[in-house]
Amino acid sequence: MKGVILARCPSALLFDLTHGIPPQDVLAGALQLLAAAPYSPPDTVFLAVVDPGVGGARRPLCLRSGRRLFVGPDNGLLWPAAEACGVPEAFHLDRPEHWLPAAGATFHGRDVFAPAAAALAAGRLPEELGSPIEDPVRLRIPECSVSVEGVDGEVILIDGYGNAVTNVRPEDLTLSNAGSAVFSFDTGAVRGPSSHYEAAAPGEGLVVAGSLGFYEIAVNRGDAAKTFGLRVGSRIKARPAERVPSR
Amino acid sequence: MKGVILARCPSALLFDLTHGIPPQDVLAGALQLLAAAPYSPPDTVFLAVVDPGVGGARRPLCLRSGRRLFVGPDNGLLWPAAEACGVPEAFHLDRPEHWLPAAGATFHGRDVFAPAAAALAAGRLPEELGSPIEDPVRLRIPECSVSVEGVDGEVILIDGYGNAVTNVRPEDLTLSNAGSAVFSFDTGAVRGPSSHYEAAAPGEGLVVAGSLGFYEIAVNRGDAAKTFGLRVGSRIKARPAERVPSR
Amino acid sequence: MKGVILARCPSALLFDLTHGIPPQDVLAGALQLLAAAPYSPPDTVFLAVVDPGVGGARRPLCLRSGRRLFVGPDNGLLWPAAEACGVPEAFHLDRPEHWLPAAGATFHGRDVFAPAAAALAAGRLPEELGSPIEDPVRLRIPECSVSVEGVDGEVILIDGYGNAVTNVRPEDLTLSNAGSAVFSFDTGAVRGPSSHYEAAAPGEGLVVAGSLGFYEIAVNRGDAAKTFGLRVGSRIKARPAERVPSR
Repeated sequence: MKGVILARCPSALLFDLTHGIPPQDVLAGALQLLAAAPYSPPDTVFLAVVDPGVGGARRPLCLRSGRRLFVGPDNGLLWPAAEACGVPEAFHLDRPEHWLPAAGATFHGRDVFAPAAAALAAGRLPEELGSPIEDPVRLRIPECSVSVEGVDGEVILIDGYGNAVTNVRPEDLTLSNAGSAVFSFDTGAVRGPSSHYEAAAPGEGLVVAGSLGFYEIAVNRGDAAKTFGLRVGSRIKARPAERVPSR
Repeated sequence: MKGVILARCPSALLFDLTHGIPPQDVLAGALQLLAAAPYSPPDTVFLAVVDPGVGGARRPLCLRSGRRLFVGPDNGLLWPAAEACGVPEAFHLDRPEHWLPAAGATFHGRDVFAPAAAALAAGRLPEELGSPIEDPVRLRIPECSVSVEGVDGEVILIDGYGNAVTNVRPEDLTLSNAGSAVFSFDTGAVRGPSSHYEAAAPGEGLVVAGSLGFYEIAVNRGDAAKTFGLRVGSRIKARPAERVPSR
Repeated sequence: MKGVILARCPSALLFDLTHGIPPQDVLAGALQLLAAAPYSPPDTVFLAVVDPGVGGARRPLCLRSGRRLFVGPDNGLLWPAAEACGVPEAFHLDRPEHWLPAAGATFHGRDVFAPAAAALAAGRLPEELGSPIEDPVRLRIPECSVSVEGVDGEVILIDGYGNAVTNVRPEDLTLSNAGSAVFSFDTGAVRGPSSHYEAAAPGEGLVVAGSLGFYEIAVNRGDAAKTFGLRVGSRIKARPAERVPSR
């Protein structure tokens, strides 16, 4: 893919965001792209591929949000990041004259997306590469549920350190001044939020507001997912600590 | 290695192909390089190191194919890619004045190959860095065997998704119009070819013509190598489906 | 982090050293940075993050050694590399006006270190970004102990091939002409040094002077750490072979 881009746009400046997305995990890829996109230069072209449906019915897609451009499969992967950068316009990359000559059905990253990203980096417009569409797949990050009791959410990502990122944002949880909450799950509970990972003793669990903008359950110098058996989809209840009877 | 290159050729544009080759697996490295090289800009210098024999009898090597240059150990790693890009000329990188001053015997990537790649990227010729040789190691991808019965081949690579890449190319297997084949192996069989990975139900096996140009055995949203116990060297028989009695 | 750097210093040339440091392993990160820094262009800005104490009491740090600059946490990670490149001057990156506007407590890599590295790459001086300090954390690589008997050391790193890098340097071990030594540990012993990894039969252990400048225990075409159960901290005794009774 990099060779294709550089062969077609020699002045392109490439940088790798990650090669650590688990195979087929569109949500994990979408969250990592969401984490990176708003911090990148405004004229960046993002090329992302987590693409179990390659070669089938799913469309090759370009999204434009402000000056930022996103290229990849129309399976939701690009949507949260594009939405975070503005109001996305969508284009179906449906013009084979812009693909590699012998484009196949198993590696659109190389045959379809890389040529499109190169063309965009070289100054072409999405309108030249595809047809506008109104119905791109809009992947939604699961939303937490807020009630007078507290917040019910779930784990949406296990990061490379084993931190369990939830879908609860600090603004979802109303805490009294200097108050704290108990985050409980099937296999235990931790108290938080703490300001940083070393606020608990080594090996102990805690909650921090992580870099993705969500509360995450962590273990100081440890792996929260392994320690607590948490996985994507694990249910989390956050309750103000004063409502939780102490043991 | 990157520091050495940039210190000697500050205008070099570096891009990483992969850091995912299993230790010592020369064939896997050769196949990945083969997959990437023909798509890269024609004046690319490829530096590849899978080098269990570093510091021993194997020679440091440069191959030139057309305008493309390849630097690495003379153990076959570079050969298939260089051969795919033209008719390779070979040079033994035997001039220590082009190496790092204190070149050691355990990291030729840093001490020998990186300085050579930097010199080539800066415009030097292979002739300046080494002596022409006629006997570089020519690694051959194992060939399948074609008969009136069908094709007998083997698995030559397990990729990062667990797909089992075979050494059977579409042109090796004669199928009647819209015909299909059965690919059988010790632990089972799958039918193909399919046009893309989602042509089977999730968790089911199939065969696709993959991006390396070979048929590969895959599992939709799964890991074929784990599912079927396939590994490099596993024997594969491909037979036209009409010759295989259905169960 | 890369996006932040490129947004603030578009002409920066980025290259990745490694993403393979085990979580929280400051010593492993320090050794890899030490291995790379002296070979890199003299005006390189090194940004390294292995940072279990992020957001707590540990300071954000910049070290300057000659023309080389190092940015990261003040937990020792940067020290061995900076010391290898000259006499380090230390600066506490204590000026929030140079950080990202909403710098948080869990990802200083993005919010504090990347803006600092970008500013340095763009020509700012460490003096503009922070206050000089005299007490940066000085991580010392554990030293081996030399006696008339031989050398007592330990494993300080398991590399990506499973080689067990010790803290014994060739100059620590006095060998008679063409002499060899026995490196023993709880679970066995190997003889060395050998000049390269293939000096032993496949699957057999040996000792080589590795690219980090230390003796390392290796297995030809194998994984020494797994074969011998070696880990960081495993004790190693190196004795001249003539003093070791043969079995």
